[in-house]
Amino acid sequence: MTRVAPQDVRHITCVGAGVIGGGWVAYFLARGYEVTAWDPAEGAGERLRAIVDSAWPALTELGLSEGADRANLTFEPDLATAMAKAQFVQESAPEDLDLKIQLLADIDKVTPLDVVVSSSTSGYGMSEMQVACAHPDRMVVGHPFNPPYLIPLVEVVGGKQTSPEAVAWTSDFFRHIGKSVITMDEEVPGFIANRLQEALWREALHMVAAGEATVEQIDLSITDGPGLRWPIHGPMLTFHLAGGQGGMAHMLDHFGPSLKSPWTRLEAAELTPELRDAVVEGVDREAGGRTINDLIAERDAGIIAIQRALGRV
Amino acid sequence: MTRVAPQDVRHITCVGAGVIGGGWVAYFLARGYEVTAWDPAEGAGERLRAIVDSAWPALTELGLSEGADRANLTFEPDLATAMAKAQFVQESAPEDLDLKIQLLADIDKVTPLDVVVSSSTSGYGMSEMQVACAHPDRMVVGHPFNPPYLIPLVEVVGGKQTSPEAVAWTSDFFRHIGKSVITMDEEVPGFIANRLQEALWREALHMVAAGEATVEQIDLSITDGPGLRWPIHGPMLTFHLAGGQGGMAHMLDHFGPSLKSPWTRLEAAELTPELRDAVVEGVDREAGGRTINDLIAERDAGIIAIQRALGRV
Repeated sequence: MTRVAPQDVRHITCVGAGVIGGGWVAYFLARGYEVTAWDPAEGAGERLRAIVDSAWPALTELGLSEGADRANLTFEPDLATAMAKAQFVQESAPEDLDLKIQLLADIDKVTPLDVVVSSSTSGYGMSEMQVACAHPDRMVVGHPFNPPYLIPLVEVVGGKQTSPEAVAWTSDFFRHIGKSVITMDEEVPGFIANRLQEALWREALHMVAAGEATVEQIDLSITDGPGLRWPIHGPMLTFHLAGGQGGMAHMLDHFGPSLKSPWTRLEAAELTPELRDAVVEGVDREAGGRTINDLIAERDAGIIAIQRALGRV
Repeated sequence: MTRVAPQDVRHITCVGAGVIGGGWVAYFLARGYEVTAWDPAEGAGERLRAIVDSAWPALTELGLSEGADRANLTFEPDLATAMAKAQFVQESAPEDLDLKIQLLADIDKVTPLDVVVSSSTSGYGMSEMQVACAHPDRMVVGHPFNPPYLIPLVEVVGGKQTSPEAVAWTSDFFRHIGKSVITMDEEVPGFIANRLQEALWREALHMVAAGEATVEQIDLSITDGPGLRWPIHGPMLTFHLAGGQGGMAHMLDHFGPSLKSPWTRLEAAELTPELRDAVVEGVDREAGGRTINDLIAERDAGIIAIQRALGRV
């Protein structure tokens, strides 16, 4: 079986047209693809048009690809017909495992065999979802972030029965259309970013439940605090800079004990020498040639630019 | 005892001149204050000048206050002399409880009685730190974020022996100098923002320890994913938009069960009807008159502006 090359895909079918599925449709249209959408919900076609219309000004401002046109969207009520022309399928159905298992099996039956099917699931592993498929090898997770038409990240990971080739093809395809791709070697529930933001979200809920902070305080603490750093440097490089000129090594060696402080309900990881070294080496690798001072300058310029962009300074 | 009005403060003394203390010094100088710094570490004076010099271009770009001048900084080796002219004290010593207890008591002895002493501690409660002070009523936590000269957030909270008036004065003072202030009614270890980012950080360390993600993948998952939303809307308003037109109520009612998914090692909060209502009402309050569509437009414009500001689109 030979797949179409990622750069030769012209026609994409989107299954599920809610907030995420509709966002994908808008993005694919803006990148110049012909898109067919299928969603069995009452009124889904109209809601989808509204989502695409509301995303279009932003996509236009960022620059549409050649041939991009909202008229390239077809809403198709029959699943088999919707799949007939597909060269890539993105499934964004509700987050319900039984539903996903059945839906992927249904999609599998009517989709040309050389076509990759990618699921937007925010946390299920493909191993759990592909169990009823006749051709599970082409079933991949391609997890986007809301809104999929603006946030670059897509996490790509296969299940036990997925072929590594399908995972690689999907990663290449998402890169080709301008996405920032993390290809994971291993299935982890919630993948990477959702595990991180879910930990934060759970702590936030605990704080509200305990009367320790209000909803508004929680949001303000992020938008006016650490949230201003996170588009520039992730948590690792951020803490690299908390260690002064000694960087992450100093930070872990000196603040390691405060890892045990009761600063969240999440139990601390044991800071073994191995973990300490893995983090220090990882940060050095990530920093590449950038010194602490380079990173500080990068962070400062970024924070100023972000605050200016948001009209706050 | 009558304190100077927050807007009449002219002289600030900073105790501790590392990454955080030095950042405070730079910020206070840029706002036009006379600043005295004290730090017993070998070479602290030179390191402080270097920190101020490295922050100054950013502060200049943002606009200095009238009279702002790096020449307004005095490094003073004697604590009592350093405190003599203080009208406000910001303590940013190393994060060691015994050290903080002793240092705050020492500061207390030589600081004019009407002067508020604020601690940059990233997680200790003032109740734990003020125990050896003769005048614990003027001891307050004023917790900044790195770098204090650019990140607006300061969390202000008193200890059991702190006067509510001192907490209010400190909040007013930080607001007067342009900070975004969260005044907490209750002491919680780590305050608010550090509890949230610590939960995320611990999950990140667990993932590295388990070989589930690399350091680089963790950072990329934030900078190119949820991190792009957090300077605009915090976690609460972000999830308000994950519920489509139904907002947070829909989100909690439909995705509530997925709270129990194994998406982080942090145990989920129990989504009681009370918590559900508190979150829904809090988000409505925070959104004010803004509809879901208003918030979507705000988020989209913000994400585009941030990516443009960072040179990514």
